[in-house]
Order: sequence, then structure tokens, then C-alpha cells
Amino acid sequence: MKPLGPIPPGFEAIDGELAVGGRKASALVAEAGGTPLFVYSGELIRRRVAALRRAMPERLRIHYAVKANPYLSLLELMGELVDGFDIASGGELGFALAAGLPAGRISFAGPGKRDEELTRAILEGVTLNLESEAEARRALAIGEREGVTPRLAIRVNPDFELRGSGMKMGGGAKPFGIDAERVPALAREIVAAGAEWRGLHIFTGSQALDAAAIAETQSNVLDLAAELSRAIGHPLPHLNMGGGFGIPYFSGDRPVDIATVGAALAERFEALPDVLAGTEFAVELGRYLVGEAGVYLTRIVDRKVSHGTTYLITDGGLHHQLAASGNFGTVVRRNYPAAIASRFDAEPTEEANIVGCLCTPLDRLADQAMLPRADAGDLVAVFCAGAYGASASPAAFLGQGPAREILV
Amino acid sequence: MKPLGPIPPGFEAIDGELAVGGRKASALVAEAGGTPLFVYSGELIRRRVAALRRAMPERLRIHYAVKANPYLSLLELMGELVDGFDIASGGELGFALAAGLPAGRISFAGPGKRDEELTRAILEGVTLNLESEAEARRALAIGEREGVTPRLAIRVNPDFELRGSGMKMGGGAKPFGIDAERVPALAREIVAAGAEWRGLHIFTGSQALDAAAIAETQSNVLDLAAELSRAIGHPLPHLNMGGGFGIPYFSGDRPVDIATVGAALAERFEALPDVLAGTEFAVELGRYLVGEAGVYLTRIVDRKVSHGTTYLITDGGLHHQLAASGNFGTVVRRNYPAAIASRFDAEPTEEANIVGCLCTPLDRLADQAMLPRADAGDLVAVFCAGAYGASASPAAFLGQGPAREILV
Repeated sequence: MKPLGPIPPGFEAIDGELAVGGRKASALVAEAGGTPLFVYSGELIRRRVAALRRAMPERLRIHYAVKANPYLSLLELMGELVDGFDIASGGELGFALAAGLPAGRISFAGPGKRDEELTRAILEGVTLNLESEAEARRALAIGEREGVTPRLAIRVNPDFELRGSGMKMGGGAKPFGIDAERVPALAREIVAAGAEWRGLHIFTGSQALDAAAIAETQSNVLDLAAELSRAIGHPLPHLNMGGGFGIPYFSGDRPVDIATVGAALAERFEALPDVLAGTEFAVELGRYLVGEAGVYLTRIVDRKVSHGTTYLITDGGLHHQLAASGNFGTVVRRNYPAAIASRFDAEPTEEANIVGCLCTPLDRLADQAMLPRADAGDLVAVFCAGAYGASASPAAFLGQGPAREILV
Repeated sequence: MKPLGPIPPGFEAIDGELAVGGRKASALVAEAGGTPLFVYSGELIRRRVAALRRAMPERLRIHYAVKANPYLSLLELMGELVDGFDIASGGELGFALAAGLPAGRISFAGPGKRDEELTRAILEGVTLNLESEAEARRALAIGEREGVTPRLAIRVNPDFELRGSGMKMGGGAKPFGIDAERVPALAREIVAAGAEWRGLHIFTGSQALDAAAIAETQSNVLDLAAELSRAIGHPLPHLNMGGGFGIPYFSGDRPVDIATVGAALAERFEALPDVLAGTEFAVELGRYLVGEAGVYLTRIVDRKVSHGTTYLITDGGLHHQLAASGNFGTVVRRNYPAAIASRFDAEPTEEANIVGCLCTPLDRLADQAMLPRADAGDLVAVFCAGAYGASASPAAFLGQGPAREILV
């Protein structure tokens, strides 16, 4: 038997079935037209943003990282809830504009921006987080050619990382950002060239659960931003402090203690150096805002036993849930939270493996899990499916195609 | 420094540039309209199939596993070259029919076939490789309802595996197929129900390079097929012996010695038991037929140095090359074969990392590789891109979208 991850708070049973936003899984599937289906709860996203705002200093702006989930209705909702948006490609710029998000509140980071992506972003008034000196010069040249003042920030490759983060983005040689010691010279060059100086972006890692580590990193980010701004010789207009707030996926994981993070940040904000006194501060969060608000629903097509092991074979799989299958950035596969959605309040009575419909042993949704007895026709829920699910999985694999999505 | 995998034979330099089918990479990119681009060489596929036919007994049929690469023009070509097709979903059935492949030469395996997929396959005359008793009964019921005799084979979960295979599909409890000891009873049930009995499918693993291991497994497959057919009490009409032939991806990998495999199989074919005397035998190969014939071309957008490490940042990445990035079924990432396509005959002079344009440290195409000096604008080639590339990668990730594809 292997443990399942913790089911996020906010999900309940109605008539024995998993319900999202007061509506039963079976009804949501019927409305959407079938399985597999991603259901995103607007209410849980609203609650998450509200709780975060309560915990953080009022001065801190909250940005949404579109990469976590670019589903149109969800982006429209985020437009009401957060202060800014971070995109990672020209494609995401298109999604953001289609959702009516104002280009002036969007910033664009990414190490391989093509000229056409830079051009469109500059014309729209998006802030570019520059990843290299060469990119800075391309952006300045495009601004000149188009007769538009580019809005430019610099992404810094810091010498420190976020301790305990699932994905480290700082500390040593990296393809992201510009090594800290080279930032002041480039910033002065940008200012001298007449661009709009938008400040710094310092991203150190993601998916950390330890509040002390996040607070320590934020403190380091503020110190580095102050030091760089002094060297640049200008007060800092804006500081994107990165993200890093993780969510519990696995058994034993605990949610981030955001009160601790917020208190530490408030303390730092009360004693800012002059060069940061007028700075706009933002955190950039994706997974933390939407990850736990999403559920992936898939229907059991077959129940079979092989050499004493029970397999529940679903019509979904790794083509929509690459990370949950254990094939994206993880070395040892562990179970995400999962349940039999159509028997959500039933007691677990048997050990079974939930697998996808793909013809590959990689397609696993839950290994050796204790579950209520389930049969063909039952619905399975995989939780923590709100971020890096639909858009971060190989949907075309084995001719399957994308899942349905719905925001409730 | 880390080694690159071996560049497959058949690629040459013209005017210093990588050429595929006698055409320079830059010309192919211009024709396709840009990068990233998958180029598949029809000539290399033809040569591969021809070499395989020379090595294998004439009696052995060669099937193409559509999952490896479902690109339409490539499927059309395979329609001229091979004897049958294996699909893994209703989506792949659609691709196969769109390419004009005859349904009577198609078989359909996959542990989670939905009723609508079974229905369409039965109506088209596709052979179903049944994965469970429950699926068999659903297929029989659909045949009865539709007034069509279903063509049914049984996928066997054998008690042995393919030694040294990258992906094991046999030996112990599995979600694939029916445990060998339960096969005879189900086969008799199928025959008694009046279905067309199409025989057995025994798939034991994939991506093996050791000819002796493949030959041993094929021998075990023949023994098991004979034993099961005797127990069923009917001569075996068809045996899909699975695939398993791998291709060299990594430094030190050697190609499969197909002469050894073919000779061992010919020997077995000369002394078949009565129950297999009239059997059609087939191998089901995907990667082996098309993998080495494909190249992924991506353009360098930026060249940067961070703390002394050189990064070549391309406009492609793991969204098209999930396996090459080390994120699909591998524990330790190793380099696929890669080169600077626009300087294909230049000597390596520096160590560099080739990365994709995605904002994640997972997006790596070549780590610490010795390469000729390359700059923004140069083309990078990742080889062994003909199978499990475009269709097996998260193309929508970070708003990137699919790569272009071209068959030359």
C-alpha cells in the first residue's frame, strides 16, 4: 500500500459524490459533455487569493503566472482578482489579451524570446523581463524601429537559491536572467538609451513549502534588489520578487504557513532602504493560486485483475496529467491525491492501481492505493489538477487529444 | 563534458550544413516556413524497412505502430512499405483511415478502449487486441448490436519480459493484456460466440538493443503462442509477436544486430509445431522504423554566458522533445545525438549547453556538449526525432504550440 497525497480543503460529498462548487461530479461531466474533464473552482481560487491578501502586507501586489493555467475563463477570473500577470511566450500574450487582461499589467519573462514576440510585446506596452544583454539590445532596436519606448526590466540570476524548492532557478550558472554582477551596467545602458526602466525580476525557485525558507529568500531578494539599485544609481520602480509558494501534493506535505511569510515580509517593508522606498513589490504565483482549485475527472473503462493486482483503467491518463504520472521533473513517483469521485464518502476497502488508457507502463495515476471498491462507469478524481495539468501534458500522445475544461 | 549520442547514419553535410535527403537544413526550414521543425526522411525510412525485410524471414510481416509517429504524410508512406498497422486509440484509427490505410490491415490494442472506439473499430473491420474479459464481452455485445462479426484477437500478458528493454510490458502483474493462463478460456468463448478469431498479441517490451535478448523473447513468444493455441484447440490464425527493436540514443549504444534476430527467427520458423504451421506472423515496430529518420531543427535565439557556462538558447525545447529533455521515462538524463546543423562539418571547439526557450530548468536539449562555436541564428539539430517527438510532447506548454513537420 502506498499513501495518496492530501485532498485539498474545500471539496465535499453530496449524495455520496464529490462535489465542486456545490455541484456533483456527475452533473459537471454531463454539462461538459464527458470525460476526461478538468474542473476549476472559481470559489476556491477567490478564497485562496483573499487569504493570501489577508496574510501579506497590503503593499505587496499579487501577480498570476499564466503558465500555470492559461484556460480562458480562468484568466478572465484572475483579471478580477490579481494585480498583474506574468507570461512566458507570445502565445501566452495572445491568451492574456484574449481574456481582456490589460497589457500594462503584464510582464514577459523567458530565455528564448523571438524578435516577433519582442515586437508584439513592445507594441502592446508589456514589460519585458530581459534575460540577456543581447536580448536587451534587440528590444532597444525594436523599440527604435517601431517608434515605441520599450518598458524594460532585468531578470537577475541571483547567487542564492530558494532552499527546499522543487525547481531551483538561482544559485550558479543558469540559462535564466543575467548574472547579478552584470546587472548594474546593463540597467544603466537601458536607462541611457531612453527606455522606460521597470526594475528587476528575481526568481529563485518554485514549489517550496517551508515558510522560513521562503521568507529567508524574500529577504535575500530585497537585499540584492537594494544593492543592485544602489549600483545602478536609480531608485527601483518595480521588483518582481518571484514566486516559490508550493502546494501539498504528497503524503506528509504541509501547506505553506503564509502568515509567517507575510509577517516576515511586513517587517522588512517597515524598514526599507531609501532606494526601495517607492518601489512597487510583487510576488508572481501560479500553482499556489490555482493548483488546488482544480480536479481532473476521468471515468473507469475497465476493472481488471492481473496476478492478484487490481487495475482500474480510466479514459484519462498522462496525456493530461504528466506530472501526476510521475514523468515531469520527478525522480521517484509518488501518488497525488486521488479518489473515487462517484463514491467520495465511501470507506476504502481494497488496494488498487489507477492507470490511464495509454498503452505504456508510464501511464499511472495512483499506485497501490487504498480505495473504495470501484467498477467500470465510476468516476475517478485526481486533485491538485489546477496548475500544470492540461497545458503541461502531451495531449496528442497516442491520438488522444485534449481534455475538456470547465470553470465553475 | 558529457558525450552526445551517436548521430544515425544517412546524414551528410552540404556546403557545411546538415542535409536531409540531399537538401540543406536552411532550405528545409525556408520551405516549411520556419523553426522549430521536424524533418522526416522518406529515403531513410525506405532503407530501414528494406534492410529489415532482407534480414527477416520472408514469412514475417512487418507492422507499423502508428503511436511512434502519426504524421499524415509519413503514414501514407508507411502504407506503401509495410504489411499492417497497429493503433492505440480511436484517434489513431482516424489518422490511419485519413492516410488511406486499409482497415482490414489494422489492429487496435490499448487497455482503456471506450465503447465508441470499439464500435467504430468493429464497424470498420479493424482487429481488436482484447485487453480483458470485460472488453471482450463489450466487443461481442457491440458486434451483435451492430450486426457485424467482430474480428477479435487477445493480447496476452506473458510471464516473461524482454531482457534489457527500456519499457517492460510483460512479467508479472500488468494493466496490459490478459494473464496467459486465462487466455484459452476466453479464446474459446470468443470462438463460440461466432466472432472472427484473429489470434494473439504478445508484447513484452520495447527499446531493446541486444539481439540475443530479442531472439530469446521471440522464441519464448512462439512457445507461448503454441502452448496457448493447443489449449484453445484451434490453429492460430495470426500472431503479433510485439516489437522491442530499439535504436541507439546514447553514447555507447549499438544498433540491434538484426541479422542475428532474423537468423534465429528463420530457424524457429523452419520447425514450427502444427498449431502454428499456418499462422501469419508479424512484428510491430514503430521507433525502429522511423525514429532515426527524423531530425528536429530549432534556431538559436540567444547565446549567453552565466558564471562561465555557455548557453545556446533555442526557439524549440521540451514542448516538442520531452524524451530528449530527459523527462519521459528516464531517471538519469543523458544527451541524445545533437549538432549545430548550420555548421555540421565544423570541428567542436567549445563546451556549451543547448536549452529550449521554456522558462524551466527541465528544458534541456544537450548538456555540457562539445560543439563548434554557434551564435544566434544558427540551427541546432536533435537527431532520433522521428519517433515519440512531436506527438509525445506537451506542445501547448507555456503557450508554445506544435512544431512544423515535413516529410522529404
